[in-house]
Amino acid sequence: MLAELRARLPDRVSTAKAVRLQHANALTWHAPEPPDAVAYATSIDDVVAVVRTCAAHRLPLVAFGTGTSLEGQVNAPAGGICLDLSRMNRVLAVRPDDMDCTVEAGVTRLQLNADLRDRGLFFPVDPGADASLGGMAATRASGTNAVRYGTMRENVLALTAVLADGRVIRTGGRARKSAAGYDLARLLVGSEGTLGIIVDLTLRLHGIPEAIAAARCPFRTLAGACATAIGAIQSGLPLARVELLDEVQIRATNRHSGLDLPETPTLFVEFHGSPAGVEEQAETFRGLAEDNDLLAFDWTRDAEERSRLWKARNDAAWASLSLRPAAKVVATDVCVPLSRLAECVLASKADLAARGLLGMVVGHVGDGNFHVAVLFDPADRDESARVKGFCADLALRAIAMDGTCTGEHGIGQGKVEYLAAEFGDALDTMRDLKRALDPLGILNPGKILPPARATGLGALS
Amino acid sequence: MLAELRARLPDRVSTAKAVRLQHANALTWHAPEPPDAVAYATSIDDVVAVVRTCAAHRLPLVAFGTGTSLEGQVNAPAGGICLDLSRMNRVLAVRPDDMDCTVEAGVTRLQLNADLRDRGLFFPVDPGADASLGGMAATRASGTNAVRYGTMRENVLALTAVLADGRVIRTGGRARKSAAGYDLARLLVGSEGTLGIIVDLTLRLHGIPEAIAAARCPFRTLAGACATAIGAIQSGLPLARVELLDEVQIRATNRHSGLDLPETPTLFVEFHGSPAGVEEQAETFRGLAEDNDLLAFDWTRDAEERSRLWKARNDAAWASLSLRPAAKVVATDVCVPLSRLAECVLASKADLAARGLLGMVVGHVGDGNFHVAVLFDPADRDESARVKGFCADLALRAIAMDGTCTGEHGIGQGKVEYLAAEFGDALDTMRDLKRALDPLGILNPGKILPPARATGLGALS
Repeated sequence: MLAELRARLPDRVSTAKAVRLQHANALTWHAPEPPDAVAYATSIDDVVAVVRTCAAHRLPLVAFGTGTSLEGQVNAPAGGICLDLSRMNRVLAVRPDDMDCTVEAGVTRLQLNADLRDRGLFFPVDPGADASLGGMAATRASGTNAVRYGTMRENVLALTAVLADGRVIRTGGRARKSAAGYDLARLLVGSEGTLGIIVDLTLRLHGIPEAIAAARCPFRTLAGACATAIGAIQSGLPLARVELLDEVQIRATNRHSGLDLPETPTLFVEFHGSPAGVEEQAETFRGLAEDNDLLAFDWTRDAEERSRLWKARNDAAWASLSLRPAAKVVATDVCVPLSRLAECVLASKADLAARGLLGMVVGHVGDGNFHVAVLFDPADRDESARVKGFCADLALRAIAMDGTCTGEHGIGQGKVEYLAAEFGDALDTMRDLKRALDPLGILNPGKILPPARATGLGALS
Repeated sequence: MLAELRARLPDRVSTAKAVRLQHANALTWHAPEPPDAVAYATSIDDVVAVVRTCAAHRLPLVAFGTGTSLEGQVNAPAGGICLDLSRMNRVLAVRPDDMDCTVEAGVTRLQLNADLRDRGLFFPVDPGADASLGGMAATRASGTNAVRYGTMRENVLALTAVLADGRVIRTGGRARKSAAGYDLARLLVGSEGTLGIIVDLTLRLHGIPEAIAAARCPFRTLAGACATAIGAIQSGLPLARVELLDEVQIRATNRHSGLDLPETPTLFVEFHGSPAGVEEQAETFRGLAEDNDLLAFDWTRDAEERSRLWKARNDAAWASLSLRPAAKVVATDVCVPLSRLAECVLASKADLAARGLLGMVVGHVGDGNFHVAVLFDPADRDESARVKGFCADLALRAIAMDGTCTGEHGIGQGKVEYLAAEFGDALDTMRDLKRALDPLGILNPGKILPPARATGLGALS
């Protein structure tokens, strides 16, 4: 089998331990589970060849972009081949008149935005990491400005995918809307490599706004911060970003970045529009905030000042460890209806305290989506168990509030067990689709779908 | 079988010819194909019972909302049961804080908006007809303000569907985004009753804007009107609606509504925002238009004046016949990338002229979507054939321009033959999904999917 692959992809198949480990997820608490070999694709034909080889030998196949997913999506629990798409990194077309572009799956979002900048366009979806766009589509990524520009679900117009039997299909299209046939593009977006391998994508682009303003608003209470964000959304204010940092996260960032911010729940807001428009938005937002325990309102249209105002938010991911430098961080996320956001965040913070855990909250609160970063010592079994219990209860709490166990990190290996609670019988339908498109179960086994219940369907993964 | 149904739904099963004909599509040129019987559901349990009966007897089942679809979606070419959902018309919940609501499938959009008005909220998707929301989801409907608020694809948060075997699944959720599992809600939206029967929906709502302004802008050329719309989209102007009427449609409306508008391609535009915001938008739009052959610019923020300015657009659907009162109208639609819009519209108008046909264009030009209404005498075989030829070439022209054979009317019976040109091998994947979810092929047979090619898959419909 390896000889077959090597003949097809000369110099592009590796079984070196370091390479295999590099391709196993190690960003979070999921133990790395390396594949048996790593193959590098440079073309759709390569992908087809690898898929066919894996199908012929019933070998698991895990697609890999940059390996920045957080729920074990690129682990290979059953071994097999990791197909690295990072060398498929050409921007194939940019069409300013249509405000769209077509890229190979391995192009990263920063690479694309560097390419677009001179044309006055940008691609908005920003999950934090410089992830590959194929991986972002596969995991239905979103991030800070999804509240204004949508997630990968809304920004993928079309894609090409290689299915489990090697068929290449093109789905969606460049028209901005279509009522033609089943929405296969949306089915593949978020399928985490379990239904097909995305090899190129056509993406919706947006014009770089004429003016950008930013604000930082500390609040007396977390409820006041949430109420302000909800009020702004309800009043139709087109916020580009609205981020919540709780007082623990602010404390961590003060320490990490040498800041001196009041250690209280704080909203970081960004407005896009015309110069007069962003000023009006900022004023309206301030009015809403003042009705909700606002402590201060700093805002600016100046680019440098903006970076300064937002520094605490931008450094948040790296700042967490400053409160306990030797610890590891687990970053988990859930998403709830807006009306339940404050309640869910406060209950989760109370649960952290009750379990004696140190964690901090960063939320994309315009969407009802928030992350909890929990610090722990992986060598401490008791603490690890408490963190796992916290994460499980967080997922179930969000589901009980009519929310979802993950707003943007995906299911991967980490959240398989919550899908039944979230979807009930619809899970069987997901299995039906998986079986229809990947009858051999070779595509990223062990991800998304829990083992089949005893319904006579047979195990799929 | 009928006895079984009648026992389950007392007084709610009819085989009367008038009732059956009423449930066969007669809005367009598709010949009415009535079902064998019509059953009225008032609950999910009713739907499950009818589905199970149809499955047991291998009978076709056609879901029916208001019967306002345009491509024969509710026809029953193979007979069977028409399941009328119009009596499932309760608004189950409106949640202003979350800006969402849950409705039964038979609630119509005007009914919902009447219910919402006092709460400052509205549901934006507006296909023209007062269609049922279940039907709008099933056909992935959109309309004039999709350019700002999206289509049913973007505005359905969750739905409950009865599958072909009677299983009831809940898909999607009330969180504004989710990365959990396969996007079954998006798969059912647009599936035209062929994969499952939508019985209730959770919809995203929007705040009624503080200010609304409207403008009417005649242009010297159609290219100028299109270029203005594209320029506005590119500059990030959040147009709520931007509608094009060609000179023939204006002439028809002048005659029908007693207006005296210049008979030239004209844009009708609507702006939503704050009072200052809509004024700024209107000014920016006027500037773009003046660079593109604008002849006049009328705009207003006054509600009554707005109706007057937009009268020609609002009357367009009824006005078509004024140019040939005895004729029938075929309304077809396609959608292309914005850069190809003017070219596609002009080529189609030239094709009308070459075929000696009278037709007019109304376009949702911010999306690249336009309709052609063609007048003809169904008794005139030659003219009917020319109309069919025109519609076929229009669909193929749009596909050749990287567009879609339908932006919003759907496939139904009318556009089945263009799907292969649009999707190629992805059509086999659609068949795979159909077979996985409806192995007996009872759900709305003859719609969307063409007969299987000789690939050994077997005929599905």
